[in-house]
Amino acid sequence: MAQKEWLEVRVDELKNVVKKVFISLNVPEEHAEITADVLIEADKRGIDSHGVGRLKRYVDGIKTGMMIPGVEGIIVKETANTLTIDGQGGLGQVVAYKAMKKVIEKAEKNNVCFAAIRNSNHYGIAGYYAMMALERDMIGISLTNSTPLMVPTFGRNVFLGTNPISIAFPIEKGWPVVLDMATSTVPQGKLEVYRRMGKKIPLCWATDEFGNPCDDPGRVLDNMAARRGGGLLPLGGADEETGGHKGYGLSFVVDVLSGVLSGGIFGIHLYEEKGKPSGVGHFLGAMRIDAFIEPDVFKRNLSRFVEEIKAAEKRENCTRIYVPGEKEYEKAAEQKEKVKLYYKVVEEINAIASELGVDATLNPL
Amino acid sequence: MAQKEWLEVRVDELKNVVKKVFISLNVPEEHAEITADVLIEADKRGIDSHGVGRLKRYVDGIKTGMMIPGVEGIIVKETANTLTIDGQGGLGQVVAYKAMKKVIEKAEKNNVCFAAIRNSNHYGIAGYYAMMALERDMIGISLTNSTPLMVPTFGRNVFLGTNPISIAFPIEKGWPVVLDMATSTVPQGKLEVYRRMGKKIPLCWATDEFGNPCDDPGRVLDNMAARRGGGLLPLGGADEETGGHKGYGLSFVVDVLSGVLSGGIFGIHLYEEKGKPSGVGHFLGAMRIDAFIEPDVFKRNLSRFVEEIKAAEKRENCTRIYVPGEKEYEKAAEQKEKVKLYYKVVEEINAIASELGVDATLNPL
Repeated sequence: MAQKEWLEVRVDELKNVVKKVFISLNVPEEHAEITADVLIEADKRGIDSHGVGRLKRYVDGIKTGMMIPGVEGIIVKETANTLTIDGQGGLGQVVAYKAMKKVIEKAEKNNVCFAAIRNSNHYGIAGYYAMMALERDMIGISLTNSTPLMVPTFGRNVFLGTNPISIAFPIEKGWPVVLDMATSTVPQGKLEVYRRMGKKIPLCWATDEFGNPCDDPGRVLDNMAARRGGGLLPLGGADEETGGHKGYGLSFVVDVLSGVLSGGIFGIHLYEEKGKPSGVGHFLGAMRIDAFIEPDVFKRNLSRFVEEIKAAEKRENCTRIYVPGEKEYEKAAEQKEKVKLYYKVVEEINAIASELGVDATLNPL
Repeated sequence: MAQKEWLEVRVDELKNVVKKVFISLNVPEEHAEITADVLIEADKRGIDSHGVGRLKRYVDGIKTGMMIPGVEGIIVKETANTLTIDGQGGLGQVVAYKAMKKVIEKAEKNNVCFAAIRNSNHYGIAGYYAMMALERDMIGISLTNSTPLMVPTFGRNVFLGTNPISIAFPIEKGWPVVLDMATSTVPQGKLEVYRRMGKKIPLCWATDEFGNPCDDPGRVLDNMAARRGGGLLPLGGADEETGGHKGYGLSFVVDVLSGVLSGGIFGIHLYEEKGKPSGVGHFLGAMRIDAFIEPDVFKRNLSRFVEEIKAAEKRENCTRIYVPGEKEYEKAAEQKEKVKLYYKVVEEINAIASELGVDATLNPL
């Protein structure tokens, strides 16, 4: 019988292994719990690119000194409704989680709060932190800069990250509305999938070493690895005619809010020095809905908005209109207890655990 | 000699005529000044689609009762850092200008402020209000919902507006960074231009009556006028593979902040009843930079960011990388005193003025 490509594992078992891996690297238990939870939430929501498949990068990050275990960021400036935080080079998940907790607490008292965070690291899915605001009837906002992988419009080389934007809204019926999108057309991982399948990629995804649109994912990935030029394209593709300058503009402003406003680094300077904190920055926010309008009215009207748009007539051969976050919530509901992982991810996690002498393994069902 | 397509007019003369047109329609002089200024600023910045070429729509708006002259919006809820405003069906420019003034005043005292505004009308270029924050060393934010012209991903009919996003950042050297983008790939006006030129449009711009991508601008525009289905595509095009769900998601959340959070209307309900206020909503914000970081440090680092990205290597056959707002500021610097208008726009303005018995005409140079 052929090896199954996707294996099912129990969420509690997965969390146990991942937590123990972090703890074995001197990450305090509470921080290990937070980091594992953010990673596994991505897998549950079907965002494999940001899930436990990245565990090795975190393990290497801690080993090389890029990510410093045990710290959680310190407030360097504070007003009634703003925070500036130095992440101390800690795990991005821990820094962002703790920051978002404070943002929500301050918004609880003062209606709105925003935090600009510097000197952090990769924080996983942007949506996790935005969604933390939901249970308090707040709107949550989460942005981050990231590894330079995207070319600016008319540029030849990578300069900006895929800098995601997330915003979450509570609702009366059904799933909350959660936008969580990279500002590139696709993440790098999508090119890897197409290469594995031997498929060409759409011309709005990436550029070759000259900066021109390219349909060969292998050529793009090899060029990017060797820094020969080219990279991911912003949402909208290579040209102004197709709106590429808009995706580029969004990525740019996410970096201004995350990197410049926090007093951190930006653009091409992220991940500049090996073995040092990456310098990733975040921008988080929360707004109480009742500062603007009765939350019940907001949530009822948002439900109506969602119902109306979903009930609208469909494009030929299409059966369903989705709203932001819907697919991810459905996937997470399916994967509450058990989550599907690519078999190589399971192998890698077990190899990491064994190498670190961790007393736990993943046993696919 | 052939008629020149673009005519140059003096900005002060243009402002005088436009103001007088509004005043003749019972718009108070101060409100006429604001509205004329927002419209002409669009023309100066090269955003013809939102400039005085729209004057007839405002004139008709006032005549039919969609836009109510003399009102400027009232605060219905207020906290130290939030506002909810009912625009009273007034001119969108007046309502948004007055609201942004209050937002800036409150942010001056309390670091940040956001306003959700309902029951307004078309407010012109989103960037105008975001840029109002710049001289106070604040970050300005401006969003609005708008006429349903965009199809949701997998939908057949228009449901959302081209709902723009604008954010403005002050800078040390050069032009401020101002993102001001519709969340559709292009505005409807672009299809009109291509139809006039007899050119096909890219497949990521619009859909036919079945909801499928269509390269014939005339067919799309005729379908839209007759409400036979189809419409503008979100940034990213028709499919998830090209990221269309992201542009759609952005448009959706802009409407939630502008329409739902303000207690107003949203989606397909804008412009539902002829002769009644359109129900357009806005979301405006301002954040003091010094609440997060020393403004000089912010502005110096933003200048460096801009210089670095502009100095980066260019794509083959490209000579320049732009940053958000740069093209518009350059155009506005060229058109400080004199602005180029399409000859039909000049004819139309003079016809409107003459019909209203306004004692002023545009005299192209």
